[in-house]
Amino acid sequence: MKHFIRFESKELGQELIDLARAYKATPRLDLAKGQGKRVGCIFLNPSLRTRVSTQIAAQNLGMEPIVLNMDKEGWALEMKEGAIMNKGTVEHIKDAAGVLGSYFDILAIRAFPSLTNRDEDVNDFIFGQFVKYCGKPVVSLESAIRHPLQSLADQITMKEYSDGKKKPKVVLTWGPHIKAIPHAVANSFSEWTLGMGYDLTITHPEGYELDEVFTKGATLEYNQSKALEDADFVYVKNWSSFNDYGKILSTDPSWMLTEKHLKKAKNAKVMHCLPVRRNLELSDEILDGSRSLVQKQAENRIYAAQAVLSSILG
Amino acid sequence: MKHFIRFESKELGQELIDLARAYKATPRLDLAKGQGKRVGCIFLNPSLRTRVSTQIAAQNLGMEPIVLNMDKEGWALEMKEGAIMNKGTVEHIKDAAGVLGSYFDILAIRAFPSLTNRDEDVNDFIFGQFVKYCGKPVVSLESAIRHPLQSLADQITMKEYSDGKKKPKVVLTWGPHIKAIPHAVANSFSEWTLGMGYDLTITHPEGYELDEVFTKGATLEYNQSKALEDADFVYVKNWSSFNDYGKILSTDPSWMLTEKHLKKAKNAKVMHCLPVRRNLELSDEILDGSRSLVQKQAENRIYAAQAVLSSILG
Amino acid sequence: MKHFIRFESKELGQELIDLARAYKATPRLDLAKGQGKRVGCIFLNPSLRTRVSTQIAAQNLGMEPIVLNMDKEGWALEMKEGAIMNKGTVEHIKDAAGVLGSYFDILAIRAFPSLTNRDEDVNDFIFGQFVKYCGKPVVSLESAIRHPLQSLADQITMKEYSDGKKKPKVVLTWGPHIKAIPHAVANSFSEWTLGMGYDLTITHPEGYELDEVFTKGATLEYNQSKALEDADFVYVKNWSSFNDYGKILSTDPSWMLTEKHLKKAKNAKVMHCLPVRRNLELSDEILDGSRSLVQKQAENRIYAAQAVLSSILG
Repeated sequence: MKHFIRFESKELGQELIDLARAYKATPRLDLAKGQGKRVGCIFLNPSLRTRVSTQIAAQNLGMEPIVLNMDKEGWALEMKEGAIMNKGTVEHIKDAAGVLGSYFDILAIRAFPSLTNRDEDVNDFIFGQFVKYCGKPVVSLESAIRHPLQSLADQITMKEYSDGKKKPKVVLTWGPHIKAIPHAVANSFSEWTLGMGYDLTITHPEGYELDEVFTKGATLEYNQSKALEDADFVYVKNWSSFNDYGKILSTDPSWMLTEKHLKKAKNAKVMHCLPVRRNLELSDEILDGSRSLVQKQAENRIYAAQAVLSSILG
Repeated sequence: MKHFIRFESKELGQELIDLARAYKATPRLDLAKGQGKRVGCIFLNPSLRTRVSTQIAAQNLGMEPIVLNMDKEGWALEMKEGAIMNKGTVEHIKDAAGVLGSYFDILAIRAFPSLTNRDEDVNDFIFGQFVKYCGKPVVSLESAIRHPLQSLADQITMKEYSDGKKKPKVVLTWGPHIKAIPHAVANSFSEWTLGMGYDLTITHPEGYELDEVFTKGATLEYNQSKALEDADFVYVKNWSSFNDYGKILSTDPSWMLTEKHLKKAKNAKVMHCLPVRRNLELSDEILDGSRSLVQKQAENRIYAAQAVLSSILG
Repeated sequence: MKHFIRFESKELGQELIDLARAYKATPRLDLAKGQGKRVGCIFLNPSLRTRVSTQIAAQNLGMEPIVLNMDKEGWALEMKEGAIMNKGTVEHIKDAAGVLGSYFDILAIRAFPSLTNRDEDVNDFIFGQFVKYCGKPVVSLESAIRHPLQSLADQITMKEYSDGKKKPKVVLTWGPHIKAIPHAVANSFSEWTLGMGYDLTITHPEGYELDEVFTKGATLEYNQSKALEDADFVYVKNWSSFNDYGKILSTDPSWMLTEKHLKKAKNAKVMHCLPVRRNLELSDEILDGSRSLVQKQAENRIYAAQAVLSSILG
C-alpha cells in the first residue's frame, strides 16, 4: 500500500481489518517495525481523537510521530498554482509539502472542505497537491470528502459485533445538527460498507442526497422508520446538503435517533464517529445504553491507524 | 494509589516524598517501569511548568506522555448531565472522558475554577466527572480547589531545607495581585502542611479567609508582621476572596513581602509556586537573594510528578 | 562548544559542516549520545521548519525534545530588570529561564526582533537574558539579529553544490516583500559566508544597507544585474531597512529574481531560507527549475541542528 486516502478493494479492506484486530490483541506486536521512522501529522483543521489515536498507533509501531497544527500555528498555505503571493498566505503548498516530505517517512494530513466551493472540495485538491509534491506516502486524517481511518475503525467495530451474521442490515441515518457539517464521514462510511459487501440503507430528509460516487449500490429510503426496521447497525451522522452545497435544509428534531425509533430494530447497535451532540443528533438513553458502540469505534481508531501505518511501512 | 487528587494521609505523603527524593538522586531509576504505558495530559487551562515537569516525569519512567491543550484546540466540553447540545459545546465530558480513558493508562488533568459559581467550584465537578467516566487513574494537574502536585513539590522542598528541625514554623501569607486568582495552591499548601504535621500560621487581610475544609488546625493571624515572627518557611501567594466569592477585596501594597517584613525571621526561607509577579507579590531582593526557594520548588515538580505516576503504576 | 548563537570561527564552522554531513549520510550515527538528555525548544515566535527539524535532530541523537510555544500558550514574559509586574506580563524571564534551565540539558530558543526598538534588537537582549539566567547551553533558533542554524544549513548546501570550486562567487540579493521582515537571515548568511572565506557581494536598493557588524568584508553593489554577473550562488531574501529601522522603503517588483536576471549567471544556483513568497520575492520558474536549492537547504536544517546539539553534548 502506498497511500491511504480512499477505499481500494475488499481484499485490502479485509487485510487491514485483520491486521488491526491483531494489533488490538497485542498492541506492541510490531514495535520494532517502525524504529527510526517518522510520521508527520499535519492538521489544517483541529482534531482530538484523530490526533491522539494516530500518535499512539505510531508509537505502538516504534515510530516517532510529530504533530503540526498548521491552523493554530498561523501557517496559511497558498494552494493556487502560479499565485502571486502578495496577500495573506505565507507559503505555497508545493514548498511546504516538499520540505515535509524530506523530513518524514509518512505524512498524515487533515484538511476539511470549504463547504462553499463544491468543485474544489469534490476534487480533494489539497490532498492531491500533497501527494504530488511531498514524494512520500500520504495518509488521510480526513479530507474534504473522505474519512477513511474512521471508516476502517467502523468496519472493525462492525466485525466485532456482527455475531457471525453474514449479511447484517446496515443503516446510515441523517441526524439533526446546528452547524453545516462536511460529508466526509458519511461518504466514507457508505464507500467502505458497500465495498466490504454489506447491505446498506441510507435515510435522510429530501435534499440531503449524498454524492452518488460514494452511495452507488445503497438503498435510499426517505422514510426513516421504514429504513430502521430490522437494522443490525444504525450509523447516525449529520451532514449538510450536497446538492444545495453546504446548506442546512432541515433541523427537524424528529430525525434525532431515540429508543422509540428503534422499536422495530430491537437488536440494533448504534454507531457514531464522535464528537456527538447529545440530545440533538442522538439521545442520552441510546448513548448511555447497551446499544451504543461509539466508545468501541473511538478505541478502534488506534488500531485502524496502526494497521494503515504498518501496511505502508511494508 | 488509584487517583491523585487530594492529600490522603501522612503515611502516603511521606512515601511520596521519599520516592520523589530517590528519583531526584537518580532520575531514571525506574526507567523500565512505565515502558509501553501512556499518560494523557489534558489541559482545560494553560500551563508551562506543570506541563513540562509532568512530561519529563513520565519520560523518566519510560512512559509516553501526550499533551492535549483542549482550551487552545477549541474543544469546548459540555459538563451538564442531560444537556441538549445545540449551543457552543462540541462534546460531552462523558464521551470525551470515556474515549481518553480507552487511549491512556493514566489521565492527568488541569481544570481551573470559574471563580463565579462557588458551589460548582467547591465540588470540583469536572474532576469528579472525569474520574466517573474515564475508568482510569486520574492525576490532578490543578483542579478548581486543589493543586496537589505543587503541594507535594513544596513538601519535598521543605524537607530538604528543614535542617533537621522537627517542628519548623510555616507561614502562609497572602500577597497582592491585580487579578482574581484561584484558591487551589493556598488550599492545597494548607491541607498538605497540616496533614504532614507542621505548625501552620495563615495571614491575610480580613475577608480573605480560605475554605475551612483546608485550613482546620491552622492559626489564623490577621497581623502579618506578628505572623511572620520566627518563621522558618514563608509561603507567599495571592488568592481572591472565598466568602465574597472570586472578588478582589484588597491590593494593599504593604502586604507585598520584602526583606523589611522578615526582620524578625532572619532564617526564614521564602517560597512561591511561580509564576510570581515581581515587586507586586514579592520583592526582587527576596527572589534574587539566598532566602528564595522558588527555583527549588519548581525543579521538585518533576520528582513530585514522577513519584505520583510511579505509585499509580504500582 | 557551549552556546550556539553566532558564527565563532572558520575552524568550528568547518567542524560543524563536516559533522552535519556525516549525520546526513547516517542520521542515527550517534543515537546513544543523547540518551537521557533533553532539549527544550522554546518559541516566543511561531515556527514550522525550525521546530520540526530541531525535534528530528534531537531524536536522531536519542534526545527527548519538548516544544514550548510560549506565544501561543499565552505566557507573556517580562524582560525588564526591576519591573513592577502589575500589568500584562505574567512571569519574569529570570524566573522562567531559571526553571527551564533546571528542566533541560540544552535550551533552544526563538525570539524575533520588535523591528521598532533598534537598540534593544541589536543587543539581542532576550538571548542574553536566557544565557545569563538559565545556566545551561543555549541554541539560537533565530534571534532578533541572527539565524545561525539556517546559515549553517546554507553553508552545508553550498559545500554540496560547489563542484570543487575553491572561490565560488556568492551574491546576497534583496527581494521585494509586503511585510517588514527581520534582518536575522541576511545578517547571519553574510556573517557565515564571509567567515567561511567566500567572496560575498550584497545587492539591494539604496537605504537597505545591513548592519556593518555582519557585512564587513563584503562588496556592496546597488546595481543588481551587475552584482549577479557570474554568480555561483544567489541567495534571495527580503529584509526591512536597518537605518530607517524596520521600515519598508521599496517594494519595487523589478528586484524579484527571475530567469531573466540570471542571463549572465548561467550556472548560478538559487537559495532561499523558506518560507518564500512565490512571484513576489522569487519567480515560479526559478523555484520549480533546476537552479533551486531551497529544498536542499530545508533538508539540511535537520543535520545542521544535529551537528550543533551533538557538539554541545560534547
